[in-house]
Amino acid sequence: MLSTRFTRRFDLKYPIALAPMDPASGGRLAAAVSNAGALGLLGGGYGSHETLQKEFDLAGDAAIGCGFITWSMGKDVSLLEKAIERRPRALMLSFSDPEPFARKITDAGIPLICQVQTLDHVQRAVDCGATAIVAQGTEAGGHGFDRQTTMTFTPEVADYLAATSPATLLLSAGGIADGRGLAAALMLGADGVLMGTRFWATQEALIHQKAKDLVVRAKGGQTVRTSVFDIARGRQWPEEYTGRLMVNDFIRKWHGREDALKAVWREEKVRVESAYESGDYDCANVTVGQAIGLVADLPPAASVVQRVAGQAERLLHSRNVASLLEGPVTERSMGAALTS
Amino acid sequence: MLSTRFTRRFDLKYPIALAPMDPASGGRLAAAVSNAGALGLLGGGYGSHETLQKEFDLAGDAAIGCGFITWSMGKDVSLLEKAIERRPRALMLSFSDPEPFARKITDAGIPLICQVQTLDHVQRAVDCGATAIVAQGTEAGGHGFDRQTTMTFTPEVADYLAATSPATLLLSAGGIADGRGLAAALMLGADGVLMGTRFWATQEALIHQKAKDLVVRAKGGQTVRTSVFDIARGRQWPEEYTGRLMVNDFIRKWHGREDALKAVWREEKVRVESAYESGDYDCANVTVGQAIGLVADLPPAASVVQRVAGQAERLLHSRNVASLLEGPVTERSMGAALTS
Ligand SMILES: Cc1cc2nc3c(=O)[nH]c(=O)nc-3n(C[C@H](O)[C@H](O)[C@H](O)COP(=O)(O)O)c2cc1C
Ligand SMILES: Cc1cc2nc3c(=O)[nH]c(=O)nc-3n(C[C@H](O)[C@H](O)[C@H](O)COP(=O)(O)O)c2cc1C
Repeated sequence: MLSTRFTRRFDLKYPIALAPMDPASGGRLAAAVSNAGALGLLGGGYGSHETLQKEFDLAGDAAIGCGFITWSMGKDVSLLEKAIERRPRALMLSFSDPEPFARKITDAGIPLICQVQTLDHVQRAVDCGATAIVAQGTEAGGHGFDRQTTMTFTPEVADYLAATSPATLLLSAGGIADGRGLAAALMLGADGVLMGTRFWATQEALIHQKAKDLVVRAKGGQTVRTSVFDIARGRQWPEEYTGRLMVNDFIRKWHGREDALKAVWREEKVRVESAYESGDYDCANVTVGQAIGLVADLPPAASVVQRVAGQAERLLHSRNVASLLEGPVTERSMGAALTS
Repeated sequence: MLSTRFTRRFDLKYPIALAPMDPASGGRLAAAVSNAGALGLLGGGYGSHETLQKEFDLAGDAAIGCGFITWSMGKDVSLLEKAIERRPRALMLSFSDPEPFARKITDAGIPLICQVQTLDHVQRAVDCGATAIVAQGTEAGGHGFDRQTTMTFTPEVADYLAATSPATLLLSAGGIADGRGLAAALMLGADGVLMGTRFWATQEALIHQKAKDLVVRAKGGQTVRTSVFDIARGRQWPEEYTGRLMVNDFIRKWHGREDALKAVWREEKVRVESAYESGDYDCANVTVGQAIGLVADLPPAASVVQRVAGQAERLLHSRNVASLLEGPVTERSMGAALTS
């Protein structure tokens, strides 16, 4: 048992949430995570009625939530209304101001989760009535800021909430992929974690097999924050948001030459999109975080939940911690000693 | 008691090391840390015979080690020889290839510590016979890479060492400033931590009071990695190394305009140096990491050691962890609940 305020509030077995990743977190992945005792969140992403309906349907009876890229969903708020009709377990808003949409969610009695990158964002989320805040470090896969890492942002947000809004739950996100990361996040003051990259590399994720195979072999140093794919796809991300992805030929060509790319983005868009379909990842984006260095296989999502929770439990369990700290340690380290 | 392989190997009470910060970690600070039961490392920095001798003398009988900026010390290896004559508890090499100097240290029977930023650096340090590796995340104050964060780099290095050199000790550095960070690092697979920013903000640190006062009020989001101060001071750092510092007017003026700065750096050097002396930190550098958001006071260094170790012990102690995880948690979070 890994009971925290987060598991009790959301009636979970484990203090773990699936990041609502566009496009990886489809209905099957979200359902698998929820059915395994964690919180599955469907990736509502940039927002498409067709995809939203299809993926909610695929999740069947599973008690899932859903997350949106706020500024993009804001172009068609009926997406949010459709999601609310599904009575999700939670609705998550990430990236840009949640305020224009928060009331719709909280008035419907659905717990609001806000993903944040700065202390100002934290305050805004609290003002919007968020039940939980996801503090995202810069090592995270996908969009985020280049401002603070999980190691410093999690405890700083914990202190901020302790002083100003102690009932608000805190999840830590960015770079967490195993039980060591979950245990560390709990030590840092989080009530649980939200994981993207680790669930991206599972059987259920809606990602090309070739991309998954690349990630299994990759090291954590092979990612970068950049805007080149946002430019190439014509996506108007608000200032300071960049995407973390695996370095490839496309990034090597354009990163640092953003103005040149802007001049030819329509042609590059066609190239990138066809590369994405065909699985040519020298050109197409592989959107993952630094946690790829901790990913070595592509299990079903339920195994990830059990493995991460089990390892964290062993690391945190009284006798283990006590004996590892006070008795003779024969294996190389607490974390490594207990890697499952 | 927080006994780990690191404390046993170096005969310490706590698995904590002082970063050999230039110029903050003088003899008094290093001695205070060692006398409190942790590993004090004198900041040999860029290297000056006069300073080295003076600060070693100031440390008196305390069993301290010393660390150098490798590429700079390499211009005058007699600095290393003088340090070896002092029979330090450890010698640490950071930033660029340790190989040309490692044998001098290990042949003298002094434990070698290498600070690293990539897995290739880890292998190099192992090949050089390092007793301990310091895995530095990008949130760290001072020089480093913009490649991986502590949350992902620590466990990835732990796995690498477990597979290739299990006897090598691992310290985690970057963003660790309290017992939550120490406990988290141990969970991630480290044998201990090396802290800079937290010790920078102590009474003994050789830093202007005005800079310390600024840091006490600062938030973790107020730092950036940049080369502008290296350019202004004419320091030839090897590729990929940038410095993390607090954002100020000088950085706002020059960051992103490095070529323009290079054209006038000699004049800027004079300005920066006189600002540093007078305590004008709109212009001079305040070299600290993201952990400033976790720093709220300027205690003596011994208090920092005791506070960090004590909080980590409470977080990791059997009954606390067990009861916090399984019993009702009344306070907002494990970390916050136990903040001392
Ligand atoms: C492929 C991918 C797509 C993502 N898309 C979204 C998204 O649509 N909405 C969102 O809120 N977060 C998205 N994220 C960010 C996650 O919410 C989360 O911050 C991140 O995955 C956590 O870091 P980790 O990848 O190291 O686990 C995405 C992340 C990845 C890896
Ligand atoms: C003011 C300052 C100066 C530093 N100077 C050095 C140095 O001379 N040699 C070195 O090995 N590391 C130096 N570092 C980096 C530290 O070794 C260490 O990586 C860093 O402080 C850890 O991150 P933290 O600051 O978040 O604790 C310095 C750090 C700071 C804050």
